[in-house]
Parts: sequence; C-alpha cells; structure tokens
Amino acid sequence: MNAEIITIGDELLIGMTVDSNSTWMANELTAIGINVYQITSISDSKEHISKVIDKALQRSELVLLTGGLGPTNDDITKNVLSEYFDSELIFNQQVFSSIETLLNARGLQMNNNNRMQAEVPACCEVLLNSKGTAPGMWFEKDGSILVSMPGVPYEMKHLMEDHVIPKVKRYFKRPSIYYRLIMTYGTFEAKLAEILADFEKELPEFINLAYLPTAGIIKLRLTGRGNKLKLLEDEINKQIDKLYSIIPQFIYGLDNISLEEEVGRLLKEKGLTVSTAESCTGGNIARMITSIPGSSSYFTGSIIAYDNSIKQNELLVNESDIASYGAVSEQVIIQMAEGIRSKFHTDFGIATSGIAGPDGGTEDKPVGTVWIAISSASGILVRKFAFSRYRDHNIRRSSLAALGMLRTQIIRS
Amino acid sequence: MNAEIITIGDELLIGMTVDSNSTWMANELTAIGINVYQITSISDSKEHISKVIDKALQRSELVLLTGGLGPTNDDITKNVLSEYFDSELIFNQQVFSSIETLLNARGLQMNNNNRMQAEVPACCEVLLNSKGTAPGMWFEKDGSILVSMPGVPYEMKHLMEDHVIPKVKRYFKRPSIYYRLIMTYGTFEAKLAEILADFEKELPEFINLAYLPTAGIIKLRLTGRGNKLKLLEDEINKQIDKLYSIIPQFIYGLDNISLEEEVGRLLKEKGLTVSTAESCTGGNIARMITSIPGSSSYFTGSIIAYDNSIKQNELLVNESDIASYGAVSEQVIIQMAEGIRSKFHTDFGIATSGIAGPDGGTEDKPVGTVWIAISSASGILVRKFAFSRYRDHNIRRSSLAALGMLRTQIIRS
Repeated sequence: MNAEIITIGDELLIGMTVDSNSTWMANELTAIGINVYQITSISDSKEHISKVIDKALQRSELVLLTGGLGPTNDDITKNVLSEYFDSELIFNQQVFSSIETLLNARGLQMNNNNRMQAEVPACCEVLLNSKGTAPGMWFEKDGSILVSMPGVPYEMKHLMEDHVIPKVKRYFKRPSIYYRLIMTYGTFEAKLAEILADFEKELPEFINLAYLPTAGIIKLRLTGRGNKLKLLEDEINKQIDKLYSIIPQFIYGLDNISLEEEVGRLLKEKGLTVSTAESCTGGNIARMITSIPGSSSYFTGSIIAYDNSIKQNELLVNESDIASYGAVSEQVIIQMAEGIRSKFHTDFGIATSGIAGPDGGTEDKPVGTVWIAISSASGILVRKFAFSRYRDHNIRRSSLAALGMLRTQIIRS
Repeated sequence: MNAEIITIGDELLIGMTVDSNSTWMANELTAIGINVYQITSISDSKEHISKVIDKALQRSELVLLTGGLGPTNDDITKNVLSEYFDSELIFNQQVFSSIETLLNARGLQMNNNNRMQAEVPACCEVLLNSKGTAPGMWFEKDGSILVSMPGVPYEMKHLMEDHVIPKVKRYFKRPSIYYRLIMTYGTFEAKLAEILADFEKELPEFINLAYLPTAGIIKLRLTGRGNKLKLLEDEINKQIDKLYSIIPQFIYGLDNISLEEEVGRLLKEKGLTVSTAESCTGGNIARMITSIPGSSSYFTGSIIAYDNSIKQNELLVNESDIASYGAVSEQVIIQMAEGIRSKFHTDFGIATSGIAGPDGGTEDKPVGTVWIAISSASGILVRKFAFSRYRDHNIRRSSLAALGMLRTQIIRS
C-alpha cells in the first residue's frame, strides 16, 4: 500500500525551515512496511491545500499531513479539512480539557485562540495531543485515511508514536515486516560498507541492510519482509549475532538506544559513578549524560574548565605543564581526568581538551585536535583525535568519543 | 511568478536522507523574488518522474529538479527528461572533457559509467559542473524552464550559484521581496497573537506577518512583496520599530540570531564575563554558551552540581539550608549563583535548580518546578518557574529562561 506525506507551512517554501518532519515520518512508515509514494510541501494556502490532499487521496490509501494547526490566523489547515470533508467545526470538550490541563501545568491562562483550538471538524476522530494545544485529527474517506497533525516536531512525534502508527497498523493489512537497528559509533559509512560488503552479499534475499548515518552514530537497519513473522525474527536475530562477530568494536547497542543511555544503563547495572572535566566540549558531555532520566544515581557533577585558571585551581593541573605543553596535551588531559575523579569521588573521570574552532588552531595543533582521557581505579585511557574544521561537529564528535571510551572502560572494569 | 522544486531519490522516500537541498534552493529563489509554490519529493521511478514534471510545468514557470543523475543504474532522470522533451541522448565533447579533467585531478580513471555521463539530451543547454561528473541541464518548453541538477549538495549549490540563479534572473521579470525576522522568547504563540492582533490588522496589505515557533523561541517574520525594494525595506523596518514598542520585553534580536549568540555579543561588547552553576540543566547552559565561536573571551567555566555534596563543597551552599528548604529553593539558588560568581571571578553567575523529571516531583514541588538566579555586583535576580512534565522540555526552557534573565541583567548593568 502507498502513503503520502504533505507538510504545510510558508516557512518550508521560503527555505527557512528544513522539512525534517517528513523524513522522520517516512522512516516510521517504511519500518511498518508502508511505501511512501510522494512527499509534498506547500504553503498555508486554502486552495492549494485542498487540491493537494484531493490528489493524494486519489493516489494513496494513507495521507499524513503536518502543519498549519497553530492558534494564529495564518494556520488554516483545520478549516480547509472541515470544508474538504463536508463537515463543520464543533466544540470538543475532551480537547478543551486537554488544552486546559496542558496550559495549567505550564502556569498559563487559556485565551480565545486556545479556546478555538478545541473546535474540530465533526466528522473526524480526535487524537489527543498531550504535548501541545493542537489535537491530531483522523479522517476516513472511501477506505482511505487522512491524518492531520501539528508541525511542531515533538508534538507530531508523540501523536505518531502514541496514536497514528498503532491505528494504522490495525487499519491496514500489510505484509509482515520486522526490523532491528544495530547502533554503531567510532567509524564512518564508507568504511563500514567496505567491511560489511560480504556480509551484505550473503544476506537472504528477503532481508535488506540500510545505513542510517547521523552525526557520529551510524545505525544499521536490517529489514525483513515476508509472510511469517517468526521466521523473519529468527533470521534477523541470527544476522545480528553475525554482525556482533564482524564488528564488535563498533556496536554499542540495539534498537535506537543512544550512547548516553547505554552508558547510563551500564553504570547503573554495575553501581558505578562518573563525573566530567570538560574544556572543548563545554558541558555537552554532562548535558548528554543528564538528558537521561535517573542519571542522578550515577552522575555527580562536572567542572567545565574553559579558562586555564580553573584547570589549575579546581582540577589541580600543574601550572608549568600548561605552560610547557599547552592546555591541549596528553600531560594536561591526564591531570584533568584524575583531578575530577578524585575531587568528585567518582569511579570514572572523563576529561576533554581540544581546539573546537573555528579559530585557535596552530600548525602543531590544528582546529579539530582533541585529547580525551578516562580515569579510573584501574588506570587511565588516553586518546588523541583529529576531527574537523567545524566547531559543532568537533564538540559532538568529542562527546561521543568520550562516551564511547567510557563505555569501553566500564565493560573492562 | 511561481517556481517548483522536485527532489528525486529513493533515500528521501524511505526517510534515510533529510531533503536539505530543497530548503536551500527555496531560500535562494525567495531571495530573488520568486515564489516557491510546491516542493515535491519522489523516488527514482520513470513514470512518476515524468508525471510530476509535466504537472509542475503546467503550473509554474520554473521547475528545478535535483537527483537521479549519478553514474549507477538506479539513476534514470536523464533518460526520462530526454524522452519527456522528445529528444535523444547525444555525446557532448565539452562535458566529456570536463569529466576527464575532474577525474584526472582526483587521480581517477574514466570508466564506462563516467563516459555515459557525457551523453546529454540534444535539446538541452548544458550547464558545466566543475565539482562533479553529472552536468546540469537547462530545458525550455513553451516559455517555461526546467533545470536538472545532481543531488549532491555541493554540486547542486555550485550549479545554482554559478549558472542557474544568474540565468533565471536574466530570463524572468520578478517582483521585489523583502523579509526580516524578529526573535522573541519568554512567551508563547497564542499569547503573542493576542497582543499583536491589532498590529497585524493595521499592517499594509503588501506586508504579511507569520509566527514561526520553535521550542521556547518564537520568530516573527514580516514579509513584504512589491515592485520597489526600498519602499518595502523602509516599511518593514518601520513595522519592526513598532513591534519593539509593543513587545520590548519579548524581543531579544533580529534576523535569526540565537539567544546565546545575542548574550555573547552583549557580554563581549561590554567586556563582561559569566560562569554557571547548574543543577537541573546539567551543563546545557554552558553548552549553549560555548557553542558560539569566541565564547572563551567571556565564559570562564561552570560547576555542574548534580549531587548536593558538590553544591556544599564547591559552591559553599549552607548544608542546613539544603536540609531545611531543599535543593530546589530560593535560599539555595541564591547561594549557588553567588558561589559560582565569586569562585570563578566573573561579572555574572547563573544558577539553576529544579525538578527536571520525569520522577522526583512532590506535591509542593511538582516536576517542572525550577529556580533560576543571576548574581552580579549590582544584586541578584531570582525567579521561580513552573514548566512541564517533560524532562527535555524543562531543560531547554530553563536554559532559555536563564539566558533571557542574564540578558536583562547585562542590559541593566
């Protein structure tokens, strides 16, 4: 069966906002065996919206719409849908209560614009949105489905995961599909593809391998299609075992777990703790660790030592070593990692120091040079990296590399 | 005049690749006064490609196509175009030489696939691609233009900048367009819309207001269309002054500047410095500040005090105050802000302490309760917030609120 995605919003057509919503939705649909036939982006124009949804519903059994549901005048999707489906807007008490709860939780007052968001076309089934004031709406027409969702990414994702995907799975008969994600770090796509060339050739015909690279993390997706789910599951799990034997050094987990989540799980399991001393990563490692609920049980804190005086005063780095070797050096990074571990009484101490860029590089230490150390009772692990010219890339890669090194040390401990 | 963008590639439809090409192209077209009517993404399917370009050429005077021009078998765009324009592929010596030069420079041999890339439809004008092996192609039909370009972003950008945009500017007469962004924080869309209802009504007909909300930041976009650029500029700048007089408390800058960038700019301008003592934000404020190049001139460092012992030992928070009032309290947040400012010798000290969630809430202090303080020589600014149930949302909002409060204090200083 075919699906189409339509994203609505002037900001997409004037090149202000990258349409990452449709990519995310396409990935979700693909994962449950639905073919995405077309993605269309249009502006908040009444005539155009109704023309495009009409065409899409003629071609495809499922049409997902995002955007144009905000509380302001330029958001017209709801009115267009009501008219298109020959319905009328009616006040929905359930939606109203949901908006009220949300606003109350944020300490906000309901105003007239919010009140209007509780009006929905009479013919649709409401999908309650617990993360925002615009509800999702599920329409049926001649066996085809159209779902309208807000364009705010985390609201759309919540509606997709909690409502749309489960309903779509029940509504449409699809071939069995089973997929798993194998999470890797510390390498790049072309290299993985080279190592895995034979593995890919030897895959059974009904299983397909895809590379999904995001900054620093490459997800491998094994997808099986067929009629017997059990057989697909067994075969894919067998292939995952094979991957573990080919690239054990790169795989850190399965099924979309993040590296910070996996590291947190390991620390919790072993009852160990960690602290960080960050220079070039500027708090990003701490932020990643503390993004995980419950991280306070294994993370105590950090010292972000941007200024060298803080490296000396707080982490007890030898002043003369900074003078002789520079702050971006093996000598200094070791003292930073040991300094934070002993000061904050943790099992592991992470330290980073590097030239994030775009300025500050020298011939000896060009932008992208980063030292990382992990200190623990059993010793210290130190590595030097040469990343790129780009500040955000360097910060992200350094943080992932540090978490990857920490993972290695936890497993060894 | 209208333009359309069509991006071709299976990777777009299965959610593997975000279509950032069309965003970039839409931005370029908007900047030269061309209205982008629709963006369509489709897979490498012959029938679908030719159907979609036919529809687009009927609706719009300019159609830009990317993708499907690679050297592999799944790239079929060139053949589809040749057939659609009733032409045939012929060998082009100029393209062949350009491919040869490029491959030589990379130390590569020409293979049969590359040789076939020198064949182009007889009816098109070739746009030489100095950055890749697939040429751009410019077709005319009944006064409309279709341009086909490779999907590799830097090849497409080179062709757009060096060939397509200059040719389009010569070919089409266009109206002027001018837009600016007004950046706001500390409020939400529905509330802004209420405050600005009259402002919006009073706008001249040729100027339009749009709300572009992203987590915690709402961008207001004023767009003007007409024939006299100078008049548009003057009128929009006049409207911006008016906005500054209506909502001075929410506007922190113009033209896509981030709050952390604006705060950095202000600190630099005044020669002031800042440090942070973060509990619930876990380093996110430091990360935001240090994401800006050159931040080392005004940011010295942070103490992330997740564990209460660190609040006591490092920030000198009174142990009995933590016991009496809890770590999430006015008494503690003030000591944290003053502690970090005096310890790190900065002009400002930011402190955060709250219940990020999802667990840890109580009846008195539900999840989302956050205290923020900014300490400076002139005194302390303290605020209590009630955000939401969601950890990521609470961390993000707390960080923005802290930077917003810092901005207020810098301006007052």
